[in-house]
Amino acid sequence: MNFQSSSKQDFKVVGTRVARPDGVDKVTGRALYGADFNVPGCQVGLILRSPHAHARIDNIDTSEALALPGVKAVVTSADWGVPEDEGLRDVQDNCLARGKVLYDGHAVAAVAAKDMVTARAALKLIRVDYTPLPHVTDVDEAMKPDAPVVQEARADESVPEGSGPNVTHYCEFGHGDLDAGFAKADTVIERSFTTAATHQGYIEPHACVASYGNDGKADLWCTTQGQYLVRDLCAGIMGMEGSQLRVTPSEIGGGFGGKTTVFIEPVALALSRKAGRPVKIVMSRVDVFRATGPTVSSSMDVRIGMTKDGRITAGEAKLRYQGGAFPCGTVDMGAQAAFAAYDMEAVRTRGWNALTNRPKEAAYRAPGAPMAIYAVESVVDELCQQLELDPLDVRLKNAADAGTKASYGVTFDQIGLRATLEAAKEHAHYHAPLGENQGRGLSCGFWFNFGGNTSVSLAINADGTASVTEGNPDIGGSRASISMMAAEELGIPYDKVRTFITDTGSLGQNDVTDGSRVTFAVGLATIKAARAAIQVMCARAAKIWGIDEDAVIWEDGAAKPSGPNAGDFEPMTLAEIAAISSETGGPIAGHHEVNAEGAGVSFGVHLADVEVDPETGATTVLRYTVFQDAGKAVHPDYVEGQMQGGAAQGIGWALNEEYIYDEDGRLQNAGFLDYRIPVASDLPAIDTVILEIPNPGHPYGVRGVGETPIVPPLAALSNAVSRAVGVRLHELPMSPPKILKAIMAQG
Amino acid sequence: MNFQSSSKQDFKVVGTRVARPDGVDKVTGRALYGADFNVPGCQVGLILRSPHAHARIDNIDTSEALALPGVKAVVTSADWGVPEDEGLRDVQDNCLARGKVLYDGHAVAAVAAKDMVTARAALKLIRVDYTPLPHVTDVDEAMKPDAPVVQEARADESVPEGSGPNVTHYCEFGHGDLDAGFAKADTVIERSFTTAATHQGYIEPHACVASYGNDGKADLWCTTQGQYLVRDLCAGIMGMEGSQLRVTPSEIGGGFGGKTTVFIEPVALALSRKAGRPVKIVMSRVDVFRATGPTVSSSMDVRIGMTKDGRITAGEAKLRYQGGAFPCGTVDMGAQAAFAAYDMEAVRTRGWNALTNRPKEAAYRAPGAPMAIYAVESVVDELCQQLELDPLDVRLKNAADAGTKASYGVTFDQIGLRATLEAAKEHAHYHAPLGENQGRGLSCGFWFNFGGNTSVSLAINADGTASVTEGNPDIGGSRASISMMAAEELGIPYDKVRTFITDTGSLGQNDVTDGSRVTFAVGLATIKAARAAIQVMCARAAKIWGIDEDAVIWEDGAAKPSGPNAGDFEPMTLAEIAAISSETGGPIAGHHEVNAEGAGVSFGVHLADVEVDPETGATTVLRYTVFQDAGKAVHPDYVEGQMQGGAAQGIGWALNEEYIYDEDGRLQNAGFLDYRIPVASDLPAIDTVILEIPNPGHPYGVRGVGETPIVPPLAALSNAVSRAVGVRLHELPMSPPKILKAIMAQG
Repeated sequence: MNFQSSSKQDFKVVGTRVARPDGVDKVTGRALYGADFNVPGCQVGLILRSPHAHARIDNIDTSEALALPGVKAVVTSADWGVPEDEGLRDVQDNCLARGKVLYDGHAVAAVAAKDMVTARAALKLIRVDYTPLPHVTDVDEAMKPDAPVVQEARADESVPEGSGPNVTHYCEFGHGDLDAGFAKADTVIERSFTTAATHQGYIEPHACVASYGNDGKADLWCTTQGQYLVRDLCAGIMGMEGSQLRVTPSEIGGGFGGKTTVFIEPVALALSRKAGRPVKIVMSRVDVFRATGPTVSSSMDVRIGMTKDGRITAGEAKLRYQGGAFPCGTVDMGAQAAFAAYDMEAVRTRGWNALTNRPKEAAYRAPGAPMAIYAVESVVDELCQQLELDPLDVRLKNAADAGTKASYGVTFDQIGLRATLEAAKEHAHYHAPLGENQGRGLSCGFWFNFGGNTSVSLAINADGTASVTEGNPDIGGSRASISMMAAEELGIPYDKVRTFITDTGSLGQNDVTDGSRVTFAVGLATIKAARAAIQVMCARAAKIWGIDEDAVIWEDGAAKPSGPNAGDFEPMTLAEIAAISSETGGPIAGHHEVNAEGAGVSFGVHLADVEVDPETGATTVLRYTVFQDAGKAVHPDYVEGQMQGGAAQGIGWALNEEYIYDEDGRLQNAGFLDYRIPVASDLPAIDTVILEIPNPGHPYGVRGVGETPIVPPLAALSNAVSRAVGVRLHELPMSPPKILKAIMAQG
Repeated sequence: MNFQSSSKQDFKVVGTRVARPDGVDKVTGRALYGADFNVPGCQVGLILRSPHAHARIDNIDTSEALALPGVKAVVTSADWGVPEDEGLRDVQDNCLARGKVLYDGHAVAAVAAKDMVTARAALKLIRVDYTPLPHVTDVDEAMKPDAPVVQEARADESVPEGSGPNVTHYCEFGHGDLDAGFAKADTVIERSFTTAATHQGYIEPHACVASYGNDGKADLWCTTQGQYLVRDLCAGIMGMEGSQLRVTPSEIGGGFGGKTTVFIEPVALALSRKAGRPVKIVMSRVDVFRATGPTVSSSMDVRIGMTKDGRITAGEAKLRYQGGAFPCGTVDMGAQAAFAAYDMEAVRTRGWNALTNRPKEAAYRAPGAPMAIYAVESVVDELCQQLELDPLDVRLKNAADAGTKASYGVTFDQIGLRATLEAAKEHAHYHAPLGENQGRGLSCGFWFNFGGNTSVSLAINADGTASVTEGNPDIGGSRASISMMAAEELGIPYDKVRTFITDTGSLGQNDVTDGSRVTFAVGLATIKAARAAIQVMCARAAKIWGIDEDAVIWEDGAAKPSGPNAGDFEPMTLAEIAAISSETGGPIAGHHEVNAEGAGVSFGVHLADVEVDPETGATTVLRYTVFQDAGKAVHPDYVEGQMQGGAAQGIGWALNEEYIYDEDGRLQNAGFLDYRIPVASDLPAIDTVILEIPNPGHPYGVRGVGETPIVPPLAALSNAVSRAVGVRLHELPMSPPKILKAIMAQG
């Protein structure tokens, strides 16, 4: 047999806007989130957190808490060993502080008790003796040689000598002769920028139920973007083998990168082991803000040279990212992404990660890229202003394209940047008039995208339907897109396929739902699994017909005799083959495991119109359009939703969102009342234009789309605001007081 | 590569007595059974049941119940369509009566309410108008031409004309010339027997939670022996496609065949659909007795001829089984099994299934066989007594063996009956002296065993452990035996493997856990899946070494270069290959789907010593030994447990257990206080002797063992009691009043 579908582009299901499989459940309350799981005898777990930004833990006395009736267990870091693996140790130390508390809200101890009242009372009975230590929360302060030392000796081998005590990682990318490049420029601008740490804004707090058995095996139910990673991290911390722990993911109420690690899960397991009972931990919103992972905040210097006709001759960026109290390598991605949109002869980016007394950063949609690209796109925009050039024309002139050697070393395959820019240029939005106090900004955006380890099983049910089993929580519509690709390949309607997200005991390894990888990689594996199932179905038909397997083709959801046997038998549909599978050899299934490569990078261009109230500094977003290359938009609604959602988050980041720490290093705005994410009334309807430049690495041309759209809004908004108020801001968020200050400074 | 393990018999894991994976969870309360699942907003479901054995439903008025505050839904059979498929329609009509109630306890309507108090109140507010109809509960009465008609026109095409209105199925097996056979006999005995309906005695009542979404898809959590069958039945009744319903099995607190269909699950789904909320139904013990499936009860005639030297010349059996108010075909299995232990020239069995006003029978361990074999083995024993022959010698003389054409048409492969009989004959038990009022009985037993549709996935985890995913609830130790076979094949220790039982969305089709199929069929598929994973691992090693895949063998848990490359590279263990799987292509897994054949029949011989108190008729079992062919005992503890458990259930069936209906057709003993199953103090330690005559149809020689051991106790006990009291009983259970009556009748 061979695949008629493998080369076809006349999609029947892919590209349509079918009903989403999770929508009704989510609006009717049927969907089960992390906190919705319950087991009999479950204890309430609560975590005691540090009131200090930095302090030595001299002693923890849990005796009074333990003596309280109804308290089943108290745990501290002493309940775990110290993992040899540094990364795992950091994850563990972030879950329960060992020796020192490193930030306001750092977990110190935890209790399991019969009810919430008892658990709260028990927390108050835990006596922790602290010796406060000097702290630092700002990245520039942290990088000074005499800064308070967050953790001793955590620099990796990349860090040059004398980089200051808190620098943990250094990176450098680029090519060409910078000096020669800048010499060719007619204008060179160098600016410094800062961005604040922001929260992913997921509505569902972290929640889990752990049940640890007396024989050393355990079950964990939790909200996560990656049940396999949770399994591996928890098993490592608990000293278990992976197969002894079954992790079942719940429906997820938003993640955006924030649920790609563990915070409470190992604590719940440790409590359960000690209590001999299941334990449930649900984070409060305050705890989510104080003690999970926001983005890095940054301090950046960018220098770009340009000729009068808009040719970029050289670019340089220095990126300083603080990622909280534990080492991280996020700056690598910023340094690689900064100039990715440009075809440059001379480019150099350098990056530093520094420790501060803040919670360890976690991924947030295109981690590391938005701030770097914000800085670069701001300087490009300022150059356009100075040289009086059209900012879109300048981007088009310098746009990376197939064959471009990117600033981070790779050579691009077929990419959609140019088409996206051209679409923006042709769009009515770009040509619409602007009023007083209004400005239009634009920015390019970029994300690498990722493939990764993926396992998919696909079963043909006897009733002619298909079940796809995958291991990636659905954060962006993957159940729909996976079902669609399976239906497309099998040649059956979408509603004959249902995709199930399963636990770690029911399917082989899957990397986390991140890197915009799922529709690409799980889709790829699903297509391959469907083809394997088709092969079985063709073999069954061949057996029934008594002809050779190779003489059977699959077309329009049916096996057909071909070649010399063409027309000898009536085609057998999937439903017909499935109905008698028991008599022809047993269940029919297809499987595929792969570490998927060829994800295909993604580019987008955003246009933003704003109006700034000169009396208050408040910014209103008047109009917003997202142009992005989706490779192939499997489900256009979801692709548009991703583009709109990323834009909304980026707008919040640009205008209002920031973690505010006081002088004592305590978070001042741990909640959605004080941490201001955009609400519906803050935003216009966000318009979208999907481009489809096929990714050669995927049978249907799919690229990841989820992360790129958060990248451009920062600079698009900054460029728009700067053009509206006539003075350029170099700091995010551009909250009303800052804009007002800039306006007033200008006079 | 090739499999060193495929032909080896020097097992390292198989045959050992490793720790059971479910033991600790079950004794500590961590195991989650059917009633342990909870979801937010869950409503209490309760079912209204018929107080009549047989009645027409004239009207059901649910309005008052619906008006009660807190009541979310009331359903009747009108909430479902009428399936075209007769079998499905019967299942549905058994779940909620349509038009007529057919037995005491038959479900009529159901409510979902906010709590138990409201649900109970609502049940009382449902008004059902009945017109009582004549009823029949006894099989012989039911087969009379003028019997009350349970259901009109339900005879299948097998039933001869004029068979009476309630006969639904007829069967006939055998070969040879009966008349000639009986003519050769020196003695012919014909006797009639009856056996009562018995309950499987599972401790956990049926329980489920159903959550039906407004978009027509649903989830169901329940205790069952077969989540796929539950899915298919429920989906059929609810008018859904199978893939729209995900069924997750809980830990199971006993099933023994009683959880191979649905009773409450479709009702919970219907309630949930109507209520728009999840609904939980947990059966009471009374409901379990009144309205789930017991065994068939029977009335049988058996005639056997024997020569003076113990040669059976002919045998004939007429079996009449009542299977409750819906058609069943259980008598087929009785008619096939009756004479399976004997190599006979002339044999004929005929069977009738008849409807009665009782709950529809369900499978109970070797369904249909124990009663038929009880009758045959009783007559054989009486012949031995009359002819003064040793009952073991007679069995040995007539024993079926490899090449024997069985009474039901098949020709046996390698079987273990003779070896089992010889082991019994040599055992000290057979030669131990007996005292006054004591007797020894023996009986052969037989079960077909089954393979069936099976899907297994096996994942190699990066930490060097393996996870096996299978779809059959573990009712007899299959998680242990499956892990053992995987470990054996992979060449890693048992505790590096964990077997997970998954839901219908996570794995392809699996037949129900019945027919003693799981260790055979799932084991077979697991071995094949492990070999597929080994093939992947060998390919990865070959890739790393840069040699041909065929030049890699798998030995002792490691890939090794062989042939011309032997010794060129150090072997790579599973853990080493697994650790770098991400770099060599991605996750490693193996899968296998099969409709397994070659299950291999199973024979057992039981020896029972009893003492009967002549004053009370009470029987004490003094000594009990089970001899059985296990093919290969993967985990001897579990095999012994199956043998002991089957014997215990058979002893209860023989001595005390029975459903007692009064004149009005109402069940009089719906609970474990009045329905008397054996407790620990009723039984001696049951001794076991495992024979291992390999089944050629399985790589390790495994045969099913779970069902055969319930077959022999009925006749073994009857033969022992008869020999103890000097008068033969032909009726089960041999409860004290019956034995006393027999003794007194004898004088």
